[in-house]
Amino acid sequence: MEQIRIFELSKEYLENLREAISTEDKGFIKDSMEGANEADVASLLNELDQDEALYVLRALDQELAADILIELDEDDQFKIISHMEHHELAGLVDRMDSDDAADLLNQLTVNEREDVISHLQEKEKSAHILDLLRYDEDSAGGLMAKEFIRANKNWTVVQTINEIRRQAENVEKIYSIYVVDNKERLQGRVSLKKMILAAAETKIADICDDDVISVPTYMDQEEVAEIMRRYDLESVPVVNVKNKLVGRITVDDILDVLREQSEEDIQAMTGIAGDVEESDSVFRISKARLPWLLIGVVGGLMGSQIIDFFEEGLQAYVALAAFIPLVAATGGNVGIQSSSLVVQTLAAKSVFADTPWQRFIKGFLIAIINGIVLGVFVFLVIAFIFRYEHILGITIGFSMFCVVLMASFMGTITPLILNRMGVNPAVASGPFITTANDLLGLAIYFGIAVWFLGL
Amino acid sequence: MEQIRIFELSKEYLENLREAISTEDKGFIKDSMEGANEADVASLLNELDQDEALYVLRALDQELAADILIELDEDDQFKIISHMEHHELAGLVDRMDSDDAADLLNQLTVNEREDVISHLQEKEKSAHILDLLRYDEDSAGGLMAKEFIRANKNWTVVQTINEIRRQAENVEKIYSIYVVDNKERLQGRVSLKKMILAAAETKIADICDDDVISVPTYMDQEEVAEIMRRYDLESVPVVNVKNKLVGRITVDDILDVLREQSEEDIQAMTGIAGDVEESDSVFRISKARLPWLLIGVVGGLMGSQIIDFFEEGLQAYVALAAFIPLVAATGGNVGIQSSSLVVQTLAAKSVFADTPWQRFIKGFLIAIINGIVLGVFVFLVIAFIFRYEHILGITIGFSMFCVVLMASFMGTITPLILNRMGVNPAVASGPFITTANDLLGLAIYFGIAVWFLGL
Repeated sequence: MEQIRIFELSKEYLENLREAISTEDKGFIKDSMEGANEADVASLLNELDQDEALYVLRALDQELAADILIELDEDDQFKIISHMEHHELAGLVDRMDSDDAADLLNQLTVNEREDVISHLQEKEKSAHILDLLRYDEDSAGGLMAKEFIRANKNWTVVQTINEIRRQAENVEKIYSIYVVDNKERLQGRVSLKKMILAAAETKIADICDDDVISVPTYMDQEEVAEIMRRYDLESVPVVNVKNKLVGRITVDDILDVLREQSEEDIQAMTGIAGDVEESDSVFRISKARLPWLLIGVVGGLMGSQIIDFFEEGLQAYVALAAFIPLVAATGGNVGIQSSSLVVQTLAAKSVFADTPWQRFIKGFLIAIINGIVLGVFVFLVIAFIFRYEHILGITIGFSMFCVVLMASFMGTITPLILNRMGVNPAVASGPFITTANDLLGLAIYFGIAVWFLGL
Repeated sequence: MEQIRIFELSKEYLENLREAISTEDKGFIKDSMEGANEADVASLLNELDQDEALYVLRALDQELAADILIELDEDDQFKIISHMEHHELAGLVDRMDSDDAADLLNQLTVNEREDVISHLQEKEKSAHILDLLRYDEDSAGGLMAKEFIRANKNWTVVQTINEIRRQAENVEKIYSIYVVDNKERLQGRVSLKKMILAAAETKIADICDDDVISVPTYMDQEEVAEIMRRYDLESVPVVNVKNKLVGRITVDDILDVLREQSEEDIQAMTGIAGDVEESDSVFRISKARLPWLLIGVVGGLMGSQIIDFFEEGLQAYVALAAFIPLVAATGGNVGIQSSSLVVQTLAAKSVFADTPWQRFIKGFLIAIINGIVLGVFVFLVIAFIFRYEHILGITIGFSMFCVVLMASFMGTITPLILNRMGVNPAVASGPFITTANDLLGLAIYFGIAVWFLGL
């Protein structure tokens, strides 16, 4: 990787950079970052404080500074742009693609945003940005850029090449040329490869591939990602309700969506509220974790009251207490396993997915097998290795079986309900399901104990 | 989406397809799938049994059948190819890109594989496939294809266009042309856009962008994915140790890697062994879940012996039993939260990542804050709402504090150790860490109880 080698993304370079900032050595900053990749510089700036980062951006030329700003984490972006003059920020926004510009400006208030846009040099760009700001950030409309090449179906290849030449500076990456009719409705696509191989006077309509896959502006970004993955697309045209071509989504944005989605799911599953990273402040991470921990604690306190309710039984048969963690942990583990498979299927969305009933039946069969295996295993260990009374082994083995069935049912139904309510179903794999299963499991356990042991 | 509409990926169509298969109506199959997308047909075939799927593939022309076969799940692929004659399979492999062909053949034994390759028509293709089979499936070498456009730096644009024309049929998607010297060493890249805009006699060396990012054959696929995401690449050239250009990885393969990786992590975290889907058989899912459940159960049984050891204390102070699930659940939740953040950072790999010591100190500070909040909260509820003796509230509150500290430490260190051992660190967010924390938590809890309550 040439670029990384030249640029040296290293702790030593970071030291030198800090030194240059404190001695106001703009020359060093500019020269050493010549030809560096924007994503690498952004990694460095993430390590600096906001004043230092702002100093570096101001030392560089606007083209590079704009590219770097786009690559920063949202938090860092916000800190920097809220300390810039509006006309200064506009100078950078003028050099961004419309989608990146809209994402950036979305972080400002409506007033600030409009003031920055009023300072833009390119009128076409401000119109594009204003258009994009109308869409929900997580929709295809919020993800698309207005910079792409479109060709009228009546054009020739050479006319289209002239259009590419005209737009060459605005449109950094061209994968396909989208073909429209006179009313700007999407008709098809022509790959650049076909353009290169075709004769200059060929009509676009003659080399146009008309079964183009497009997405509507309102489609959720995760669905767009799944379509692009499924059909191996590197870009996809976005159309409005009248099939008018309004934008293009490129695969680099989709890679970011997928990473974000996977981080979001994992955080939801592990009970971390909000988008935090290990590099965030102690206070912030602590705050992101506390809500779910508190839910777990409240659940645990409620559990203590269930156990307290059976205190007499426990007095009479104190060995029952020893198996509380066993029953509770199994309930939690089974619940998480079940919900995780359902969440996975919900994410993949298929016409042929099982109906809720088929899911329950299947989950029920799996739970019966696993419940029997675990129940018998536990009975054998308790009765023959630990040498408790057989009736205690039977009580706990049967409780295990019931808890596996119950947790499997809860693990299947919870993500389905959350999904229907529009909540990220991955939450169901986290502390929420564990806590609910703990409580139900305790009630089942003591219920069975009272019944079997006659307490 | 035109294609989906024409093809109708629906349960009704699936019925009609099954009907056509049973009446051996090849005409219906061929006509109705005319122009259908291979990914959609693959979804349908996933619903059929292996004989039906094989019948459909044989009814279609080889080009489409090859594309569909690539898109099937690995399990279904294996079932189908193991029932094909080797010359029949070779006919399909002849129509695949080398990387897809190698992935497919990797499922066969070495002997079967070589026999299929010996039946291939194109000698160049068999050489390509044999070359690719040498690489680890999860490395850049295992992911790359041998079909791509390379140009010598001394060529002109028109010479390069002739090369594209010559290769047009083999190389479906062209993003960049990779430029090599006379020894086939990678020198740079030229985008198709530049090619279109350049004059015919321009030398390639003059329009070549020489800071091209490449990856070595041995790089892990997840690292390749991160590089392509970070630098917004739609394709990346693969070089050997001598910097010789040996292949190209395209972003569509990376989208699959990312999805696979995210599913793998989630399964590891939720305690599901092996790659299963909700559509797999009851027996298979059950088998994938049992190992982790058993680990949890063994942990729970060990826990019962820890509690049993403190039986006298419990006899004397039975209310202690009521708070076992609270302490255990909190330990589990804190452990999973801590490990999940570490796993996330390990996946992102950065030069500026914290050292293990920095991690511990930070984790320690977060744990102190959360431990104090939870400990005090629990004390207040137990002493003033549940109205137990204050000393019990203090015992349990202080146990909570210690358990949060311990679980946070375990949650930080476990993924770091697993990662160093070459095990997927996401395992540390699953039943493994929960079980370990349960046991340690119980020991801490009873230890403190004995000390504070003088049992």
